[in-house]
Amino acid sequence: MIPQNIQLDSQGRLRHLLTIEGLKRQMIVDILDAAESFTTVGGQAVKKVPLLRGKAIVNLFFEPSTRTLTTFELAAKRLSADVLKINVGTSATNKGESLLDMLRNLEAMHCDMFVVRHAESGAAHFIASQVAPHISVINAGDGRHAHPTQALLDMFTIRRHKKEFAPLTVAIVGDIMHSRVARSQIHALTTLGVSELRVVAPKTLIPSHASTLGVHVFHDLTEGIRDADVVITLRLQKERMESALLPSEHEYFQQYGLTPEKLKAAKPDAIVMHPGPINRGVEVSSEVADGPQSVILEQVTNGIAVRMAVMSMVLGRAPEGAAQ
Amino acid sequence: MIPQNIQLDSQGRLRHLLTIEGLKRQMIVDILDAAESFTTVGGQAVKKVPLLRGKAIVNLFFEPSTRTLTTFELAAKRLSADVLKINVGTSATNKGESLLDMLRNLEAMHCDMFVVRHAESGAAHFIASQVAPHISVINAGDGRHAHPTQALLDMFTIRRHKKEFAPLTVAIVGDIMHSRVARSQIHALTTLGVSELRVVAPKTLIPSHASTLGVHVFHDLTEGIRDADVVITLRLQKERMESALLPSEHEYFQQYGLTPEKLKAAKPDAIVMHPGPINRGVEVSSEVADGPQSVILEQVTNGIAVRMAVMSMVLGRAPEGAAQ
Amino acid sequence: MIPQNIQLDSQGRLRHLLTIEGLKRQMIVDILDAAESFTTVGGQAVKKVPLLRGKAIVNLFFEPSTRTLTTFELAAKRLSADVLKINVGTSATNKGESLLDMLRNLEAMHCDMFVVRHAESGAAHFIASQVAPHISVINAGDGRHAHPTQALLDMFTIRRHKKEFAPLTVAIVGDIMHSRVARSQIHALTTLGVSELRVVAPKTLIPSHASTLGVHVFHDLTEGIRDADVVITLRLQKERMESALLPSEHEYFQQYGLTPEKLKAAKPDAIVMHPGPINRGVEVSSEVADGPQSVILEQVTNGIAVRMAVMSMVLGRAPEGAAQ
Repeated sequence: MIPQNIQLDSQGRLRHLLTIEGLKRQMIVDILDAAESFTTVGGQAVKKVPLLRGKAIVNLFFEPSTRTLTTFELAAKRLSADVLKINVGTSATNKGESLLDMLRNLEAMHCDMFVVRHAESGAAHFIASQVAPHISVINAGDGRHAHPTQALLDMFTIRRHKKEFAPLTVAIVGDIMHSRVARSQIHALTTLGVSELRVVAPKTLIPSHASTLGVHVFHDLTEGIRDADVVITLRLQKERMESALLPSEHEYFQQYGLTPEKLKAAKPDAIVMHPGPINRGVEVSSEVADGPQSVILEQVTNGIAVRMAVMSMVLGRAPEGAAQ
Repeated sequence: MIPQNIQLDSQGRLRHLLTIEGLKRQMIVDILDAAESFTTVGGQAVKKVPLLRGKAIVNLFFEPSTRTLTTFELAAKRLSADVLKINVGTSATNKGESLLDMLRNLEAMHCDMFVVRHAESGAAHFIASQVAPHISVINAGDGRHAHPTQALLDMFTIRRHKKEFAPLTVAIVGDIMHSRVARSQIHALTTLGVSELRVVAPKTLIPSHASTLGVHVFHDLTEGIRDADVVITLRLQKERMESALLPSEHEYFQQYGLTPEKLKAAKPDAIVMHPGPINRGVEVSSEVADGPQSVILEQVTNGIAVRMAVMSMVLGRAPEGAAQ
Repeated sequence: MIPQNIQLDSQGRLRHLLTIEGLKRQMIVDILDAAESFTTVGGQAVKKVPLLRGKAIVNLFFEPSTRTLTTFELAAKRLSADVLKINVGTSATNKGESLLDMLRNLEAMHCDMFVVRHAESGAAHFIASQVAPHISVINAGDGRHAHPTQALLDMFTIRRHKKEFAPLTVAIVGDIMHSRVARSQIHALTTLGVSELRVVAPKTLIPSHASTLGVHVFHDLTEGIRDADVVITLRLQKERMESALLPSEHEYFQQYGLTPEKLKAAKPDAIVMHPGPINRGVEVSSEVADGPQSVILEQVTNGIAVRMAVMSMVLGRAPEGAAQ
């Protein structure tokens, strides 16, 4: 990693959020603490705080998304920002304008933040490296690379249930190879110092450099989640199954789908997570997804608070009392 | 009807608005009274009241719509709510997420209201039966079943012109069989106790159970609207004409199209209504649509006030002085 | 021109903005002065003024657009208005509603302003001639006819750099024939009284009536921009090149593309403008577009202030101190 992290400003404050990789432990904790102060907003009669009033936040989604787009839009509105949704498909193709020219134009309109989702790994970094000094970039998922707000909301959810990271055994189950979510989770969990971090998947879905990431690799689900405090299931991209990487949904579920029986291998108070949307009967059975150990919908709720925290912090407007 | 109306909370207050069927007369009157207090908002310099500030209202339109979607969006903004539009087409198909999982996620984001339009009859009821206790559902049209806010704005418009419902003769002209608007109007007019309620249509467009609805059936337009106080024309779905149900637009207009000549059969001060969009020269001639007896554009104006009233009431925020 | 300008109300105030043609010099200056007072808004911590709070502004874009739509949306939000985007494609085609009926409905909803873009010349005029007295119409580009807010932001940009129009030589380079931008610029520059106005293009792209517009026609770029104070390059519609009007992008750039070398013919302090989006290497080289004489991004920034000014003025809400 280069010393001058593009994500931080000259005083070490968060300016962009592009990846968890390279973020200091204290910075992650600061974000989680700031998010804590936003969790009450969703339960208020008036679900709004004026922190980002008059700021213009642009959702630049080059990949289709409903859930992530909606949570960012809602988080921005709860911070009282103005939100613009650029129909990038129409924009980019219709008039042949380059990405950089589009960015320059949005900057010239005094926009304050770009929330970027893109199918290419590195797209958010590239945009962050190009924007004017007054603009912040948040990576809402780039290719197979990173999905940092997802990982942060997962950490927030784990902390709410387990208090401390140090004693935890965490198992991530599924398509580790192609998952930007897994990559960001691994960086976050490693930085926060969990006791043991495992990945569980068929050999074809484990990246070859997995061992360098500080994780233990398992190919058997029951073994992989044994005595785990946290079981994170990943979404299986159905497209992959048409390739030779996987036999079939049914076969995947047989081996790696989380059922109440298999879940018994984990600790009795283990929590089950999933970034959504769930393929029921593929990654998890409905009994588990809707069961007492599932915190999947809490993840969605926490996602709003965590995104409010990140958006406030990169614009230098963290809530009172939140360390930054 | 089951005793425990899903639309009401345990204290008998309106929680969802799914259908007019089963609503008590007083509840309908309460909604119309609340709407009365919102009619002045559209004429103010600042067309906004802060009643729903910080509430998140989600437009879930599974069927394309411009007018109804726009009026709900405008009504929500005039109540100072935050409005989210979910591109359901993209959402539902792209990632194979189930409707229920989508609802659970929107609930977890602390959304407050779903405004639902769907091609399937019963969709809004189904969603209302599934949502968390803090969510209200408004049916913006489901299949052939119901379009309750349309019927309420029609009642509001009639009341403004005719004061009392008891003495009125009301004729509904057009495709009664397939019209969710007609169905909701019939329930509303019956509950409000009009003197005589008639439906006027070719035999192929009258449902077989019409007689059980308390309406008088006419197949001749002039007979059907004779001495009526209110003539409601319905939109003819052009798709139907390609089937065997109807001969042609021209022939329909000859027999059931409302012209100034035919309108003379109604009372001299009869008002003419249409839910829009109008097929000019099919259901009504332009002379009638734009003539002195037409209240078609007043219906649109009243639609905003009525939707503001319903949205406020289901969230427990009716304006001061409005009975609830 | 007819004496009763549809753009002005009975007291001579701006009610619609449809075209620069026929606007008095003082009116243009008033708009530029009002825009001046909005330029600081973009730099404020809270980029909002409450001038149009509670007003409903409808973007009616019958032609696809990202940049112009975004700037109007942002300008409206910075004025605290509520903004509705009508998906005209869906609306117009799905239910066969006529344009006039759609307008009548939006009026009945107490909307305050229509921002119209349309592929047909005259569309905004037609709409303005039809709307109710409380509605203002702003032309955001109609066919080959006019794009008045673009011309005004160009004038604003020129005035900021050159202070006075009287001594200026201005050259407009490119597809004059098909450009609504050029047409509006020519009217504005003529009304503001520049010393010399030139158009530079191949013969096939100069309208036959160019001489009647009070411009000097050049076919050679270096001659056309010699000693110019302002060089305005126009976007080349790539579609045109497939027709017989133009040989190829490469050939066009050879003859009419603005490079640093060719730009030396203009005054040393000449500014270079382009309405965007730029086709780099066609109308201008990147060296020029991103060079010290380019004010292209300033045009974008100024576009927000100018649109805020026009929107405020047509609704009778110009900022304090701005002449109207």
